[in-house]
Amino acid sequence: MRAEIGEQPAALRATLDALLPRMPEIGLLAQETRQVLFIARGSSDNAAVYGSYLIQTHAGRLATLASPSVATTYKKRIDLSGVLAVAISQSGKTEEIVESLDWAADCGARTIAVTNGEGSPLAEAAQVALVTKAGDEVAVPATKTYTTQLAALAVLGIALGADVDVADLRRAPDEVERLIAATEDSGNLAPIVDGLSGVPGVVVSGRGIAYGTALELALKLKEACYLHAMGLSYADLLHGPIAVVDDETPALLVAADSGPTLAGTVALAERVVAAGARAYGVGGGSALSEATSCALPGPDLPEWVSPLALIVPGQLLTEALARGLGIDPDVPRGLDKVTQTDQ
Amino acid sequence: MRAEIGEQPAALRATLDALLPRMPEIGLLAQETRQVLFIARGSSDNAAVYGSYLIQTHAGRLATLASPSVATTYKKRIDLSGVLAVAISQSGKTEEIVESLDWAADCGARTIAVTNGEGSPLAEAAQVALVTKAGDEVAVPATKTYTTQLAALAVLGIALGADVDVADLRRAPDEVERLIAATEDSGNLAPIVDGLSGVPGVVVSGRGIAYGTALELALKLKEACYLHAMGLSYADLLHGPIAVVDDETPALLVAADSGPTLAGTVALAERVVAAGARAYGVGGGSALSEATSCALPGPDLPEWVSPLALIVPGQLLTEALARGLGIDPDVPRGLDKVTQTDQ
Repeated sequence: MRAEIGEQPAALRATLDALLPRMPEIGLLAQETRQVLFIARGSSDNAAVYGSYLIQTHAGRLATLASPSVATTYKKRIDLSGVLAVAISQSGKTEEIVESLDWAADCGARTIAVTNGEGSPLAEAAQVALVTKAGDEVAVPATKTYTTQLAALAVLGIALGADVDVADLRRAPDEVERLIAATEDSGNLAPIVDGLSGVPGVVVSGRGIAYGTALELALKLKEACYLHAMGLSYADLLHGPIAVVDDETPALLVAADSGPTLAGTVALAERVVAAGARAYGVGGGSALSEATSCALPGPDLPEWVSPLALIVPGQLLTEALARGLGIDPDVPRGLDKVTQTDQ
Repeated sequence: MRAEIGEQPAALRATLDALLPRMPEIGLLAQETRQVLFIARGSSDNAAVYGSYLIQTHAGRLATLASPSVATTYKKRIDLSGVLAVAISQSGKTEEIVESLDWAADCGARTIAVTNGEGSPLAEAAQVALVTKAGDEVAVPATKTYTTQLAALAVLGIALGADVDVADLRRAPDEVERLIAATEDSGNLAPIVDGLSGVPGVVVSGRGIAYGTALELALKLKEACYLHAMGLSYADLLHGPIAVVDDETPALLVAADSGPTLAGTVALAERVVAAGARAYGVGGGSALSEATSCALPGPDLPEWVSPLALIVPGQLLTEALARGLGIDPDVPRGLDKVTQTDQ
């Protein structure tokens, strides 16, 4: 896992080189649609959450998540004319996702695949296949296949008209490279690993563009550290589950260094600390660092593209915590690399 | 909380009496739309999950969940022409939800409110207000305001053309009444309370129509028992978090007594048990009961309407577990009855 974290800058560069020239093709397909529907599970679902916020906040289109069981378990047709269905799967072999994309096409949608599996069933099923260039990923917890999915979704967002500067996307691989070193040099990984060792659970929260990153960090901590990590949006946390944060259950708060959700995340950190619990930060600049006991550095990127790098300190934290707990993060229990939902 | 659980049959009868006659009005508003977008938080969000599955599996329309921060934090306009926006809030006073519904109208959507707050800002903001008749709810964990929301969403689904028998909806209040007694008479509450006392966390899972019920039960256990309860769909659980289920972390599996997701839920129970963990059932008939260590009875209702009653054994379990842990379930820490996201 640690080696694959380090391969992300090169994987992101290769993916952007491959996909940025595909924008006209995406734009042409999208002309006949008005909204986006993502089809995904697991880490890919967290990537879809990023895609949905990016497209809604910057490209002026509705973008939401599908319920694959409508297609695969209930086998019901719904009207999807005018919908751009985007299925995301690192392997491209998860049957539920392939079946759901075929279903979407039958229901009238235009279709795009985002996958690392060149020539995979999912790539073959879609009208446009955006194949990421992560190379082989051996560790079970997805790292470079996840961040390259985010890169593909950033390309998709720009192709759909997002009001952003593509130069910032091109800077992301360098920022990932810098951030890997900066996180390990910060001296803050060890105290957070200590703070998370032996806790009954942890709440991981972020909002808006950073929400998918919080979900992905929570998933990594569940998969590789068997930690009861609850990924919640800032708003959902306040609507009930704030009760579980206490002196034994810390909060990990994730934010970009700037943007409209930062102030709320800092306020949440202050509320958690005031309630007698510990708060750790990932990103969020000096404001979040000052509001928490300890924080990992975030990328120097605009909010819209920050998730491509913001997960990286979380990946390093997961890897270090798993080793600290005596778990081999490359091969956690109970999981296969290609997940089939129905077997 | 226990008293309000018992008030649900009457609250559901009153709500159905009030809302079933409103179907023509809903149908008229919906004529100009092709899909549904739910706007909600907390328990209301779990109700929305039920609504989205019901409408997609039985009424042939796309139905998905909005991201309120797009409206309230990012303040971005997106094209919502042809969208029926349905905002759900028990109080009708949560500013984020009211603001999001106003935003949806500005973006071209038709609007419906589902709320227990007659004359509330949310009811006033919507073109059609479906006001539930739960009466005053005093305990912080929502019970009767939640199940009456489900009743309103069932009415909405039928008004949108769901291929179901309304007589089954009319039977739901009696089933809730029967199920309260059957759960307490089953003798199975105490052993499950024992089994959940002192565990570091629990996974709560269900799929499709029962997924919202699993999320709601997880939320109740977090709110009232401070338990690290993870609500996950059956499919998402297999894509990673299955690693957290172990001999100390049981699974609570929720299913209707029939329907296409039952077999998968039973298979999941068998997988959890084979992994050395405990599985408890809620509903799922004899198949789920036999696959788990102990199960609470479910309603004798078709799958599509079962969530109105399926949460009830979970409410009773939450209430009993909270008392067993020395917590007053009526007033858990950290929560107010009307939740404002940004204060």
